[in-house]
Amino acid sequence: MTTLPIRRSYTPVSLANVTIDDAFWSPRLEANRTQTIPIEYEQCRITGRIDALLLQWQPGQPIPHIFWDSDIAKWAEAASYSLTTHPDPALDAQLDEVIALLAGAQQPDGYLNSHYTAVEPENRWTNLRDNHELYCAGHLIEAGVAHFAATGKRTLLDVVSRYADYIATVFGREEGQKRGYPGHEEIELALVKLYRVTGERRYLELAAYFVDERGQQPHYFDQEAVARGDDPAAYHFKSYRYSQSHIPVREQREVVGHAVRAMYLYTAMADLAGELGDATLLEALEALWRHLCTRNLYITGGVGVSSANEGFTQDYDLPNLSAYAETCASIGLVFWMHRMLQLRCDGRYADVMERALYNGVISGVSLDGARFFYENPLASRGDHHRQAWFDCACCPPNIARLLASLGEYIYAANDDEIAVHLYIQGAASVTLGGQTVTLRQTTNYPWDGDVAVTLAMAQPARFGLRLRIPGWCRRAAVSINGEPVDMEGKLAQRYLTLVRTWQPGDRVTLAFAMPVEQVYAHPDVQQNVNCVALQRGPLIYCLEQVDHATPLHHLRLPAGAELTPRLAADLLGGVVVLDGEALAAETGDWANTLYRSAPPVLVPAPVQAIPYYAWDNRDPGAMCVWLPLAEMGGD
Amino acid sequence: MTTLPIRRSYTPVSLANVTIDDAFWSPRLEANRTQTIPIEYEQCRITGRIDALLLQWQPGQPIPHIFWDSDIAKWAEAASYSLTTHPDPALDAQLDEVIALLAGAQQPDGYLNSHYTAVEPENRWTNLRDNHELYCAGHLIEAGVAHFAATGKRTLLDVVSRYADYIATVFGREEGQKRGYPGHEEIELALVKLYRVTGERRYLELAAYFVDERGQQPHYFDQEAVARGDDPAAYHFKSYRYSQSHIPVREQREVVGHAVRAMYLYTAMADLAGELGDATLLEALEALWRHLCTRNLYITGGVGVSSANEGFTQDYDLPNLSAYAETCASIGLVFWMHRMLQLRCDGRYADVMERALYNGVISGVSLDGARFFYENPLASRGDHHRQAWFDCACCPPNIARLLASLGEYIYAANDDEIAVHLYIQGAASVTLGGQTVTLRQTTNYPWDGDVAVTLAMAQPARFGLRLRIPGWCRRAAVSINGEPVDMEGKLAQRYLTLVRTWQPGDRVTLAFAMPVEQVYAHPDVQQNVNCVALQRGPLIYCLEQVDHATPLHHLRLPAGAELTPRLAADLLGGVVVLDGEALAAETGDWANTLYRSAPPVLVPAPVQAIPYYAWDNRDPGAMCVWLPLAEMGGD
Repeated sequence: MTTLPIRRSYTPVSLANVTIDDAFWSPRLEANRTQTIPIEYEQCRITGRIDALLLQWQPGQPIPHIFWDSDIAKWAEAASYSLTTHPDPALDAQLDEVIALLAGAQQPDGYLNSHYTAVEPENRWTNLRDNHELYCAGHLIEAGVAHFAATGKRTLLDVVSRYADYIATVFGREEGQKRGYPGHEEIELALVKLYRVTGERRYLELAAYFVDERGQQPHYFDQEAVARGDDPAAYHFKSYRYSQSHIPVREQREVVGHAVRAMYLYTAMADLAGELGDATLLEALEALWRHLCTRNLYITGGVGVSSANEGFTQDYDLPNLSAYAETCASIGLVFWMHRMLQLRCDGRYADVMERALYNGVISGVSLDGARFFYENPLASRGDHHRQAWFDCACCPPNIARLLASLGEYIYAANDDEIAVHLYIQGAASVTLGGQTVTLRQTTNYPWDGDVAVTLAMAQPARFGLRLRIPGWCRRAAVSINGEPVDMEGKLAQRYLTLVRTWQPGDRVTLAFAMPVEQVYAHPDVQQNVNCVALQRGPLIYCLEQVDHATPLHHLRLPAGAELTPRLAADLLGGVVVLDGEALAAETGDWANTLYRSAPPVLVPAPVQAIPYYAWDNRDPGAMCVWLPLAEMGGD
Repeated sequence: MTTLPIRRSYTPVSLANVTIDDAFWSPRLEANRTQTIPIEYEQCRITGRIDALLLQWQPGQPIPHIFWDSDIAKWAEAASYSLTTHPDPALDAQLDEVIALLAGAQQPDGYLNSHYTAVEPENRWTNLRDNHELYCAGHLIEAGVAHFAATGKRTLLDVVSRYADYIATVFGREEGQKRGYPGHEEIELALVKLYRVTGERRYLELAAYFVDERGQQPHYFDQEAVARGDDPAAYHFKSYRYSQSHIPVREQREVVGHAVRAMYLYTAMADLAGELGDATLLEALEALWRHLCTRNLYITGGVGVSSANEGFTQDYDLPNLSAYAETCASIGLVFWMHRMLQLRCDGRYADVMERALYNGVISGVSLDGARFFYENPLASRGDHHRQAWFDCACCPPNIARLLASLGEYIYAANDDEIAVHLYIQGAASVTLGGQTVTLRQTTNYPWDGDVAVTLAMAQPARFGLRLRIPGWCRRAAVSINGEPVDMEGKLAQRYLTLVRTWQPGDRVTLAFAMPVEQVYAHPDVQQNVNCVALQRGPLIYCLEQVDHATPLHHLRLPAGAELTPRLAADLLGGVVVLDGEALAAETGDWANTLYRSAPPVLVPAPVQAIPYYAWDNRDPGAMCVWLPLAEMGGD
């Protein structure tokens, strides 16, 4: 292992030290807290997920699903984050009840899985490739860590620590241990969290073992299949690319397979790179990041295009109507980018994190917090709608835990600097040079590009304020206490670093020009030839049928058409829409004609674009992100 | 039943009375005769289809498939047509051998099916919905009719007549009979052929029964499922639209379900409309035709867009890359249109027949006659190629029988007229007014639009010569013996009718202007927005990667770009290609960029289009029919 000076150089400012009081985010977080989290508990209850922890399943009854535990764990994690920001005795008590059930389901050896324990105890750890034991364990561990951080209670943390300790006895390279690793990555990143909260290095080592062992030969999933009496060649997904275990992780340079698995693996790899100073992991991650972002990322931050493998297909294959773009995968991308930012405060990562967060992540839940997308297509004929729940319900609690912990994604700090990754109104408290520095943001972002950052502390202090200049912004102006800042020499990796002795009350203002952009896709994206997407600031826009008298697919946007932002305060909770004039293909003169030599006649038609995340919150209908350009005629 | 003066007003000039000596078709027919037909026999042999007729299957052996008999039958039908035009004692003897096997497989009661007799005799006629007993019977009947017409031998005709007689005892409305009908239509049109060749009206009546009973309530397929102990609601295809049995046929106004089934049904309906003077069938057929041609027909004559049901989805849904467009379905469309032309000599039908024949049908077989498409997509990324055979091998023998009988599709006649539907060099002999009239076509069609028709007969004769003016032609000139014809008043339903006392040696020349057309699709075809297809005469063109240095998907055609036809005598057996200049999107300046605000830079790039039917006969690569137009900029 090459050791280079890689380290976790920025630590996120923790949830407890951040407040959010933001016109854009606060209503979403409130819906998450008051609607989504309670709804998810209730769904876990009525679907039998919670009762399954009683381990009273009998043959003939519906079988507790192999990933039910993870749904409960993610709910518990989300609820814990919510307690951090919004103390709530009832929720606290509800968590205690669930944790008691989890503790009760834990076996004497530490094992904890409602499916295997109740249904097929003899098959424990026999199919890591397809089933989700270690995946569920990972989510339980994340929940335990979050619950401890929120409440100081060790109840769940101790349960999951015992479980992790037991897992460490089962898996490893010692005589008598299984050389296995999860088919669905997740426990790796969870073990890093457990290490950080407990200080027990063995958890870090177990995470490193799982990551290092992945994809080694002879292939564990082959051996495991043979041990079960299965033919490894009969594997449904044909290739171990599906689970990123086709080759060792350090040799991986292309994002492949199931997108959520990929994102969770890369997140853990980034964590380990930072903890272990492992440059070979970072090198792989850089290549994977480039491959994702230059060839396989939806403009909405969606990842994974195909329902067949819930993942990647081939470079530049980015279908719109059939886009999979699972909510969980975009959330996983946020996790990964957040980890990369801890290694390198580079705006390329923050840009991707922001792209996913403001578009393909929050599209995953309705504005009222009650309904969810699993898939986030970039076009619809009107038949794709959010649902109350899913049999495979990974997405709803995933978005709940991300939103409930959003505060952690905004700021980071080290001994010398405070970094601002996201512009969200609110405040962060950071201990720097022995005193608390409170940084307060005032902004209407993403509706406009003006941000004010004020500093409050007892004493003047010298430190660096590292402010992100978003990649979508082509013209930014910054001033300190009204004095324009010359950015020359202060801008690196899309962050502006202002190092000085700051005075209490200092105020930095940022003005990011936020025009409407018409965005083109790389010519190898065959689905978007002759199309543009509309973007303003971090938001990707779409057209919805409900706003148009003309069928959406008749509309063509003249190249360079002017689109005017307008605040529609009463629409969709208050959004900036884009108004403009497009052209609509007439069909009246096509009666009984399917093909003809004359092009369609185009007539002016108004268009109104809304932010993508907000679609499918009104009357159901068609939607599109990519708009065909009008063919201009002439030559 | 309303009876209107519907009748079969034009009878095709039979295969025996037509010769083809045509630069375009003769090489294809020769490949069909010398390659395809022998290859198909050999495939039937080595795959066990022929041996299955020995009925010696034993448990544990591979099961003879439920439609294997139909493959043999279609081969026998094709071979019979081939004998008609090209006597061949070896093929004749080979046919006799296969017919002897078929006769030997016939049961004492007349039943003939290699699967059911050998594998599950107890299940005979228990699953008309899903299995293919009546479908196979239909193909056997068609083969018997063709074999008799070609050879005068009654060997197979008698076998299939006995089978049909037996079937007539099983199915019908009498006490003790099954009220069933085929899940896959085919026997209906075959029974009409059997009626015509034997004169036995009971076969026509059985065909009419099957057609009339289709879709009646209570639904036979429901009752049959219950009788098997199955839940009708568990039907894989959910709706009887799949087999056009959702409602009675006379109520059907929209093409639905499995496309081949639909085409075969409509063909039989047209046959019956003509034989029975049934205007209610014709009314349904007219509506179905309009629905197909104005909303659901590929520009290549492909029908049925989805692999899920091998059929139709929703109006204007015409995907290119995933187009199903089964070869058999386009062949079925040719059958149907040929029947419609017998009812009404209307160029709308001939245009569709020609569109399918010159594009989506003959694309189904390689130029050398040895490899076959099952699906005929309108775009490919380079991974779609013809195959030597298929487990489900309906298409190869279907195209063989159509090509071997092509002569029957060119001309038709009645007591007063000779009609020319297709322009193919060769001759037809027709008995008119007590003498033989020989009509000879000289043409290089479809490579140019000049056709000369000369008449040879012993005595002058008064009759109408009905010449099709193709729908693709916008400027036609006609002369008789060098004297221009004023078409005023002589043109109806896209046919020019010249009635006069014709002299031996009279020569009619037709000149159809054949410019390159850029064709647009209806704006509701979302897949073809801002695209054009190239057409010249009846031929649809495509681009193939092998002719281009630039990746095909980078090319954009300027609207109105000039494309020049050029005879490439050495290419693909001699084709007219279209040369032109397009624009290619540059990707060099996109390095590491997936999305950007600047449109792609377009640079000139040559394009060469080839006829669609000829694609995938050279180095494998991408292909596209619909070309994106270049965005012209400006406003």
